[in-house]
Amino acid sequence: MKNKEQILNRLRENGEFVSGEELSEQLHISRTAVWKSVNSLREEGYEIESATNRGYRLGSCPDRYSPAEISAGLETEFLGRNAFCYASIDSTNEEAKRKALSGAPNGSLFVAEQQTGGKGRLGRSWASPAGTGLWCSVLLRPGILPLRVSVTTLLAGLAVDRAVRSLTGCNAKIKWPNDIVIGGKKICGILTEMTAEVDRIEFVVVGIGVNVNNTAFPENIRDKATSVRIESGKNLRRVSLLQEILIQFETLLKQNAESDPVFWEEYKKCCISLGRRVGFTRRGAGVTGTAVDVSPKGELIVELEDGTRENVTAGEVSVQGIYGQKVE
Amino acid sequence: MKNKEQILNRLRENGEFVSGEELSEQLHISRTAVWKSVNSLREEGYEIESATNRGYRLGSCPDRYSPAEISAGLETEFLGRNAFCYASIDSTNEEAKRKALSGAPNGSLFVAEQQTGGKGRLGRSWASPAGTGLWCSVLLRPGILPLRVSVTTLLAGLAVDRAVRSLTGCNAKIKWPNDIVIGGKKICGILTEMTAEVDRIEFVVVGIGVNVNNTAFPENIRDKATSVRIESGKNLRRVSLLQEILIQFETLLKQNAESDPVFWEEYKKCCISLGRRVGFTRRGAGVTGTAVDVSPKGELIVELEDGTRENVTAGEVSVQGIYGQKVE
Repeated sequence: MKNKEQILNRLRENGEFVSGEELSEQLHISRTAVWKSVNSLREEGYEIESATNRGYRLGSCPDRYSPAEISAGLETEFLGRNAFCYASIDSTNEEAKRKALSGAPNGSLFVAEQQTGGKGRLGRSWASPAGTGLWCSVLLRPGILPLRVSVTTLLAGLAVDRAVRSLTGCNAKIKWPNDIVIGGKKICGILTEMTAEVDRIEFVVVGIGVNVNNTAFPENIRDKATSVRIESGKNLRRVSLLQEILIQFETLLKQNAESDPVFWEEYKKCCISLGRRVGFTRRGAGVTGTAVDVSPKGELIVELEDGTRENVTAGEVSVQGIYGQKVE
Repeated sequence: MKNKEQILNRLRENGEFVSGEELSEQLHISRTAVWKSVNSLREEGYEIESATNRGYRLGSCPDRYSPAEISAGLETEFLGRNAFCYASIDSTNEEAKRKALSGAPNGSLFVAEQQTGGKGRLGRSWASPAGTGLWCSVLLRPGILPLRVSVTTLLAGLAVDRAVRSLTGCNAKIKWPNDIVIGGKKICGILTEMTAEVDRIEFVVVGIGVNVNNTAFPENIRDKATSVRIESGKNLRRVSLLQEILIQFETLLKQNAESDPVFWEEYKKCCISLGRRVGFTRRGAGVTGTAVDVSPKGELIVELEDGTRENVTAGEVSVQGIYGQKVE
């Protein structure tokens, strides 16, 4: 660990003034080295008070993705314990897949201040400007069949929903399968990708993009997109949101939540698609009906005009009243 | 294209003697450069006859994986047109996935003289010694749902089966889903891997490992493994086998063979599993029955003792009498 990180840890653990002498002795470095590290931390945005004869005290920490900030107080066992942080990257999902091929462990986290080629579902792009959002991916190496991946992605959706609710009090809802919306506009998209044999997962990458502190959106998505900041009226510390998502997601994964009726109850309560008119595509043709339930496999159950029910697994489902969608 | 490859192409196209002067003029290089290239080709194993006043004539070509040898006479549209050849690599599937992430096109071929970390299904290792086998992977970027991948892997199996039959006359059979066996022993394994969203394939890598000219096997697999050489009594040119597999596989892919009953008829005729007692694992417990059919989705249909039928999609199926398996 670098001097800087060690000093940060000491100040964080202590909470009060720690003298330069004490730091110098504990870390076996010179007083000058302590002073240099403190200045370097200040340049990174850490508020560090200094007082003659008392030493240094940590004030506020920057809302910045670094392994030190992410791990500080993170109560997970494996999710996010191994964090890769980037100022800018093409796509955290792509980076996660590359690192997975060279052996990154289960639970690895990839997070960037900015994505230059952020991806949405079905090959679409995802706007990921610097500094405003949470653009991250987690790598899972679960021993599950490829079919179960669609449930994993629902767990991630509920984890984000829970985190946004608990940190902001906003009435965040899930548009099946895993978009998070507030007031009918999207704050979060989730892109799950897997690398698998026909009957064995090698790894799953769950990409989570949350509009956190954006104050405006490009014209072409203004009707559909919003941010936690716009909806709650306050800036949210992005690192805190990330930590809460990691904790919630790990909890759901460890519980095998999908085999517990309580999970489905909570998911359905949050799922804004249910009871609404929805449209989807079947063999190239548009079909409409009413979303009535979610199956234990994570499929959306849609009741058609003629009363028959269809389990929808894949592709695009539009929901009346969400993102201004009209379903005829 | 290098001088060497251009000279090789000219000699191959011509079939007879081509004078050094003609080569020098056509390729705009010196006579000395022609002579150097010819010598370099000879060092690579090409037999090139030279005669005073007549020039050079191509004799036999080495059985060596190079883009020039693979493309010579290859009648495919996309499969193998872009060939990456390696003297030694960890695993052609791993290399294909890495190259896929950096944009390699549909149909790219990855082939190695030797794999140092060859992989079989379910994370097992696959012995891939230098010079004796066909160890290759093809990259497909199909616009299909993840569920259809299991059918793609059956097409690859039939392609290998057809190629081995037509080049050797051996009675090669398919052990469902896609092992190729002769006389109850395995000559080929296929490992299909995909990278996908829940509802959209990004790419599929089909790894094909064929024991071609092996004359012996390590003791631990001697009961289960054989080679084309051992079964047919003759050396097969590996590049020719590769070309035939590529042609057959591309034909089946372009035909969307799985929607044609004729494909299923041929597949089932070649499938040694049908009519035999098989064992498989269901939720951790061993189940036995008789394989009676293959479904249009590529599942093995097994009739259990009580007369009910089960569609087996995943995991391990053992077949009585194949690889010395006993099914109780």
